[in-house]
Amino acid sequence: MNDANPLVIFTPSGKRGRFPVGTPVLTAARQLGVDLDSVCGGRGICSKCQITPSFGDFPKHGVHVEKTALSDWNAVEQRYEDKRGLTPGRRLGCQAMVQSDVVIDVPAESQMHRQVVRKRVEAREIVMNPSTRLYYVEVEQPDMHEPSGDLERLVKALRSDWDLPDLEADIGVLKMLQPALRKGNWTVTCAVHLGDATFSPRIMHVWPGFYDGSIYGLAVDLGSTTIAAHLCDLQSGEVVASSGVMNPQIRFGEDLMSRVSYSMMNAGGADEMTRAVREGMNALFVQVATEAAIDRNLILDAVFVCNPVMHHLFLGIDPFELGQAPFALATSEAISLRAMELDLNLHPAARVYLLPCIAGHVGADAAAVALSEAPEQSEELLLVVDVGTNAEILLGNTKKVLACSSPTGPAFEGAQISSGQRAAPGAIERVQIDPATKAPRFQVIGSELWSDDPGFEAAVANTGVTGICGSGIIEMVAEMRLAGLLDGSGLIGSPEQTGSSHCFLDGRTHSYLLWDGTALGGPKITVTNRDIREIQMAKAALYSGARLLMDKFGVDRVDRVVLAGAFGAHISPKHAMVLGMIPDCPLDKVTSAGNAAGTGARIALLNTDARRDIETTVHNIHKIETAIEPRFQEHFVNASNIPNAVEPFRILRTIVDLPEVNFNTGGRSDGGADGPRRRRRRG
Amino acid sequence: MNDANPLVIFTPSGKRGRFPVGTPVLTAARQLGVDLDSVCGGRGICSKCQITPSFGDFPKHGVHVEKTALSDWNAVEQRYEDKRGLTPGRRLGCQAMVQSDVVIDVPAESQMHRQVVRKRVEAREIVMNPSTRLYYVEVEQPDMHEPSGDLERLVKALRSDWDLPDLEADIGVLKMLQPALRKGNWTVTCAVHLGDATFSPRIMHVWPGFYDGSIYGLAVDLGSTTIAAHLCDLQSGEVVASSGVMNPQIRFGEDLMSRVSYSMMNAGGADEMTRAVREGMNALFVQVATEAAIDRNLILDAVFVCNPVMHHLFLGIDPFELGQAPFALATSEAISLRAMELDLNLHPAARVYLLPCIAGHVGADAAAVALSEAPEQSEELLLVVDVGTNAEILLGNTKKVLACSSPTGPAFEGAQISSGQRAAPGAIERVQIDPATKAPRFQVIGSELWSDDPGFEAAVANTGVTGICGSGIIEMVAEMRLAGLLDGSGLIGSPEQTGSSHCFLDGRTHSYLLWDGTALGGPKITVTNRDIREIQMAKAALYSGARLLMDKFGVDRVDRVVLAGAFGAHISPKHAMVLGMIPDCPLDKVTSAGNAAGTGARIALLNTDARRDIETTVHNIHKIETAIEPRFQEHFVNASNIPNAVEPFRILRTIVDLPEVNFNTGGRSDGGADGPRRRRRRG
Repeated sequence: MNDANPLVIFTPSGKRGRFPVGTPVLTAARQLGVDLDSVCGGRGICSKCQITPSFGDFPKHGVHVEKTALSDWNAVEQRYEDKRGLTPGRRLGCQAMVQSDVVIDVPAESQMHRQVVRKRVEAREIVMNPSTRLYYVEVEQPDMHEPSGDLERLVKALRSDWDLPDLEADIGVLKMLQPALRKGNWTVTCAVHLGDATFSPRIMHVWPGFYDGSIYGLAVDLGSTTIAAHLCDLQSGEVVASSGVMNPQIRFGEDLMSRVSYSMMNAGGADEMTRAVREGMNALFVQVATEAAIDRNLILDAVFVCNPVMHHLFLGIDPFELGQAPFALATSEAISLRAMELDLNLHPAARVYLLPCIAGHVGADAAAVALSEAPEQSEELLLVVDVGTNAEILLGNTKKVLACSSPTGPAFEGAQISSGQRAAPGAIERVQIDPATKAPRFQVIGSELWSDDPGFEAAVANTGVTGICGSGIIEMVAEMRLAGLLDGSGLIGSPEQTGSSHCFLDGRTHSYLLWDGTALGGPKITVTNRDIREIQMAKAALYSGARLLMDKFGVDRVDRVVLAGAFGAHISPKHAMVLGMIPDCPLDKVTSAGNAAGTGARIALLNTDARRDIETTVHNIHKIETAIEPRFQEHFVNASNIPNAVEPFRILRTIVDLPEVNFNTGGRSDGGADGPRRRRRRG
Repeated sequence: MNDANPLVIFTPSGKRGRFPVGTPVLTAARQLGVDLDSVCGGRGICSKCQITPSFGDFPKHGVHVEKTALSDWNAVEQRYEDKRGLTPGRRLGCQAMVQSDVVIDVPAESQMHRQVVRKRVEAREIVMNPSTRLYYVEVEQPDMHEPSGDLERLVKALRSDWDLPDLEADIGVLKMLQPALRKGNWTVTCAVHLGDATFSPRIMHVWPGFYDGSIYGLAVDLGSTTIAAHLCDLQSGEVVASSGVMNPQIRFGEDLMSRVSYSMMNAGGADEMTRAVREGMNALFVQVATEAAIDRNLILDAVFVCNPVMHHLFLGIDPFELGQAPFALATSEAISLRAMELDLNLHPAARVYLLPCIAGHVGADAAAVALSEAPEQSEELLLVVDVGTNAEILLGNTKKVLACSSPTGPAFEGAQISSGQRAAPGAIERVQIDPATKAPRFQVIGSELWSDDPGFEAAVANTGVTGICGSGIIEMVAEMRLAGLLDGSGLIGSPEQTGSSHCFLDGRTHSYLLWDGTALGGPKITVTNRDIREIQMAKAALYSGARLLMDKFGVDRVDRVVLAGAFGAHISPKHAMVLGMIPDCPLDKVTSAGNAAGTGARIALLNTDARRDIETTVHNIHKIETAIEPRFQEHFVNASNIPNAVEPFRILRTIVDLPEVNFNTGGRSDGGADGPRRRRRRG
């Protein structure tokens, strides 16, 4: 020690400064702007400010730290240790006082702006910066000589202890405040919404004394088929429960267009669907709160992502205009509301945030994908495809980002495929065809065994082999093409042309027998040429959307492809590329982002700055309307070929052999692929 | 005319400038910042911008105005004239174009910030500046090449045409916007709330095309006994209907303390009372909207004033703490809410504003009185007394303003008086006693005749003479004192002492017979010495509150006295002063403000700047808590005397003779006046 005040060095930030002997570590941290959490404001109650002192020589920092560098373990720490236990080596930052030079580590969980772990390093970081935080304060008692409301004295305490602006109080707070202050002996814990463009900063809830629990938020992905919610702890960022329900709107129509039609055909139909989705939402909230064993009233914030039709119906807007050109949205900007305005049963003061929509067919879900995948931050040119019944496509890098949607239709979900089905136990999800024997083998959901493995029949005895799901049909078609059973134009060859008894004449075209389960009381699973046509149209729509964006960007290749959506998570990149669904690209550069829309919702929930970011990004995204782009039609026709009539797919051809077969014997043998303009949009 | 552009001079503002030939008058007005109204933005639709050109020589302005100074009457004006008629000499400012030098008068009704006429010149001006205004705009149609929401294009139009900031939309607007835009052929009229400290500026409603109606606001005075509402046109400021209902909380207790007790004694009692008052409020809204023949959904704003207990119960706050020292308010600041948060059935987006409370016993009603009477703007030292069962007292001038409340009790409303009653037909409201004969005469509510006028009995045959109302009892007691029937200590003399047969022994003290209606089947109306005691206590409480403020101000006289409250409107200043209710003051300086609290509510409704003003004023008001001021007790004892034991009342004595009588024959003959500390507060 020397004459100067002791030196305090914080890691990992590296911030350092000299403080008088006896300065609490929390005070030093605050003065240096070190990110050290605290709810109780240094009163030794909340234990959020835990730190770990390091002792010994630190040549890097040029200090030696004595064992006595911090004050002795005190009664407050002992009480906390007895009650809850403290990780060995940890101290409470508000209790431990600086005695001599010291190096102090702030563990991740003690950082207010802690980083939430994401599995995928290439995507956006999640740094905690939630809308709502907890603050503990001691409040002055009322004084007849200087009359002021209890609220005004609370606001004053929050201002002086926490540097918060002059807060307003929710009406529910007015009701609970006086009993809480008296029960807490003039101390309370407040949940404070820090404000946004719509709402001024506001006290949402008060608890008497120190509130030892947490507060929660919901990240909700409102899909046409399912509604999925992640319940997140707004202090730690942790997902404490996840749950899903079917969208009850399904009874009004399976796909989006049929729901738009329902609202057109039925007076009050839109309102009926609005009520249905909100009721479903409330049921889901009960479910997810029950799963986490928390009170639903502790949910103070919620972020929603959805496609434009769902967005409008959820908000109570008739989606009529979205069903016809020019596909005008009622509003495209992000929306902040109170949950009660949407009849949502959360905390009475809870807030709701809906991400902005990008365009009439590119919704808040696509914005959430953009938020999760951050193309605008990518040096590589990134193509993000959210594969669903309507594909949303983003292409961009730090220079610019383009977006469009393309009407893929429901074929990728197994619909309109003769043996197609939703992904469920018993559905074929992986397929291989031996190029020599042309015989297939496959796996079904619910079993790890291949269909030619011993014990397969026993393994699938419960589920049966019931059909082919979306990822299965993609592998199936690609494997048929690789095995020379299918030509580039999408014709299945005859038994004679292919030399395979699995091919058989089925009306005017040929089909391929994948599995005959009739002996076991199950279905015969075949792929018809009509099925191939459906997949051709779906993948052509997807590819031509991506290709159109590449045109607009002025490139003919992309650096990286991200497949988003639950379906995207199951697609085999190789098979998708054989099909020509996605542009030619090194296979290791094709990755799945899983439910990127849901992740985007979670990011916006946990970090309000991310909301401003995505609002700006969406403003800057250049929207392309495929319906009015002449080249889309041309790309579509080319992309109907497998993999493509004109694109070379050079990288793909280094990996696989694409047999040069042609089963056309003159004269079209089926109706051919529809043009994209004849297809209506679906969700 | 000379080479320069024509000179345009506006009156009454005197603003002037030169504009090119052909400039519309509205454009010239806008460029000069002349206050000329317009809803349609100069499209010749709304007719709000009517102006009157003047012709001939104007030496004062140094111009000569030709008959041709404005362009000819045009087709738009002709269409308006045919449809609705235009006052002769008027032109539409957006159609009439400047041709040569011209003097243009902007009539009051064409001014956006028009002044609303108030009868009393000494009180605050009301200048229109409402929270919510109408704006007509033409909106760009959607374009697939540049997708944006209909709302965003509307917001853009409001920004570019009206210089409005980027507005948000209420959720109801999202629902109605798309059909309205299409029905109005891409024109709509918007009701826009211009924002406040709580809410960002926001579109509240849209109508297709030009909306030709008005929008409305409510100024509500929520009293313990009655709820009164004024429905105001938010464009003209006019009161279009006024109505009142009994406060349904009366079933839980007549006065405030009994309601506070009800909430203490009954679990859920406060919630019950909250529901009751809100239901009563909604019934009143139906009534007032029906009276004005308008749709209740056109009511977009509402301002409420009330005492602290009503304030808390209306907001859903248990008034428990207001029933006991230190009388802590849950909140004292002004409150902005959505009407739906208080379960009020107005427009779904309607806003609510509650004025701030001054202290635990000096509520938003007293703040409203301060807003109406503006003591902080008065050069004279002004005493404002809101006479009710709890008197709120303000004393101040431009230097400072003090406030207190004083528990007068219900005697001034005729309660706790043996023959007392509410002001209603049949109640005695004016009294005179002949100083020579000591015989009384009186008037009752519902008749102009005095009781000794011929035909009086016939005139009151329907109502009867049923009792004495508050203003009647004040005149009665003052007249008894002037006639020498009552001494300064408040004792009624015996028939022998007074020489009046109207005095008679009534138990241990004397009473005075005012009217014997028994022959007509009515009651005998007397004033007992107990009645005198009640009035003494009430007036002593009022006076001692005022006197305490004078002490604090460091004065022993005031320049002016304003009596507020419905009751205050009926009090005779002379009699009030004989009683010693109010400080000595020239009688012509004692005026009634009528329902100043209601007027204050109306001011806050029509001018949002006034809300900021009263918030500031209330912050600056110095609050005095009478209960803890030792001198209050001393003033109270002195003020129990009629008019006062120590104050000279010199001005009063120049107007009236106060007989020096003393009827005390040794030994107190009744219980004497209670001290103020024994009284509980009432409302």
